[in-house]
Amino acid sequence: MQICQHIEDVRQQGAAWQREGLSVGLVPTMGYLHRGHASLIEAAARENARVVVSIFVNPLQFGPTEDLASYPRDLGRDTELCEQSGASLVFNPSPEELYPPGFCSYVIMEAGPSLGLCGASRPGHFRGVCTVVAKLLHLVQPHRAYFGQKDAQQLAVIRRMVLDLNLPTAIIGCPIVREADGLALSSRNTYLSPEERRAALCLYEGLLAGNNLVKAGDADTEVVLRAVRERIEAEPLARIDYLALVDPLDMRPVPDLSGPTLCAAAVYMGTTRLIDNLLLKD
Amino acid sequence: MQICQHIEDVRQQGAAWQREGLSVGLVPTMGYLHRGHASLIEAAARENARVVVSIFVNPLQFGPTEDLASYPRDLGRDTELCEQSGASLVFNPSPEELYPPGFCSYVIMEAGPSLGLCGASRPGHFRGVCTVVAKLLHLVQPHRAYFGQKDAQQLAVIRRMVLDLNLPTAIIGCPIVREADGLALSSRNTYLSPEERRAALCLYEGLLAGNNLVKAGDADTEVVLRAVRERIEAEPLARIDYLALVDPLDMRPVPDLSGPTLCAAAVYMGTTRLIDNLLLKD
Repeated sequence: MQICQHIEDVRQQGAAWQREGLSVGLVPTMGYLHRGHASLIEAAARENARVVVSIFVNPLQFGPTEDLASYPRDLGRDTELCEQSGASLVFNPSPEELYPPGFCSYVIMEAGPSLGLCGASRPGHFRGVCTVVAKLLHLVQPHRAYFGQKDAQQLAVIRRMVLDLNLPTAIIGCPIVREADGLALSSRNTYLSPEERRAALCLYEGLLAGNNLVKAGDADTEVVLRAVRERIEAEPLARIDYLALVDPLDMRPVPDLSGPTLCAAAVYMGTTRLIDNLLLKD
Repeated sequence: MQICQHIEDVRQQGAAWQREGLSVGLVPTMGYLHRGHASLIEAAARENARVVVSIFVNPLQFGPTEDLASYPRDLGRDTELCEQSGASLVFNPSPEELYPPGFCSYVIMEAGPSLGLCGASRPGHFRGVCTVVAKLLHLVQPHRAYFGQKDAQQLAVIRRMVLDLNLPTAIIGCPIVREADGLALSSRNTYLSPEERRAALCLYEGLLAGNNLVKAGDADTEVVLRAVRERIEAEPLARIDYLALVDPLDMRPVPDLSGPTLCAAAVYMGTTRLIDNLLLKD
């Protein structure tokens, strides 16, 4: 497995693979990898001859009051996990490599799936995500790129961007990987105290409570949302940032439960913001 | 020569050429082609095995009070010129093909060469240019793309976008083609009355007057700008939109004539806005 810091090295390797007719999968990450990331790399390795994993804590997608400086990093452990999961190349650029002096071009989304939810709570977040993903797609020129469904809005935004800008890469969403008790894996789980870790389960249990009501069949959106909210708010350490029933493609609130419905939530456990979601209707 | 209206047809042809190892040049145009465009297509045909010419009057780069509806169109004559100049494929999509319902992703430039000049006179113009050029680069995946130096700021903006977003295409700037009397070729010259057409020469003659002062060696920026302005304003039909001495890479005003200097101007002849420029120092 190669490890590259520089754009030109990745570009040359990608071009060489292209000349050989090898398919390439890309897994963009911010590092501090867990089994969720491993599942993305494994999926990419199954479906492509070569796999590039980018490890880059993208400053552009963090707000001024967010956790850029404290975001966890462990490159040694990350590269080991990449190799074990089937990666061919790890791209680990510096911020200056991707955003050199004079950088001033951005990919933005003015409507559609970028509005609301994390788009409302984190101004500029999806501008940062779209810009860095577009850069990585241009650099690596992958046939397929893999994203976790935990970041459901990010996945919807990237699908829309790829469609709108006619990028030639197929975007693959992969299932959320959870701890044994149901907590969705996240690099930010490392921030949680033991007490917050126990309390954090309210997020998934809330989603399950909503799911049970939908399966029982006679609930409307208000009833479902109330059940999810009550389970989360039963936990004194939890503070809801947002909770919504949305269309999983355009991420707009659904008026009723007649079509595809995703329940998406962001919850603060102390100072740590966790997100999770569950598809209540397909 | 093929003529395609649909994205998928262009994408498939591009992929086929790529599999065959053929180099591809792209010439993005808004149609109503003249010898300036022909020189771009000919350059692309010399340097690439296949040449794609896009003909698309891009609504996204026109302001609400600009000439989108009246912009001249003549697809029959255009395709003939493309074939004679060595094009392999003409891509002539509808606005709905490139901007379907729900479209909401854009490439923007927040600083650098997009500020000032046309960026100031035409709000949103470079957002439209960057977005459509990024789309065409994604669709066609050319090795090289060709742009005229008449749109000097557009060329600088596209170079910056390609650098910032790590697009794999080489951007080639081609010399301005002029009428026998010096007027830069432009599809918008067709708007000019015979009287305006004669008067329009003041633009190039103004640039030449500035150039002569720089070559004589003892002028500063104020003296040069005054000479250009005086020649243009000697023409009662002319109204200057902007006139500036700028760095040809970042398009910012130069403080003196010690480095590379481009004289760029936009001038209204009646209701027709013409642009032109001349490199005074390399």
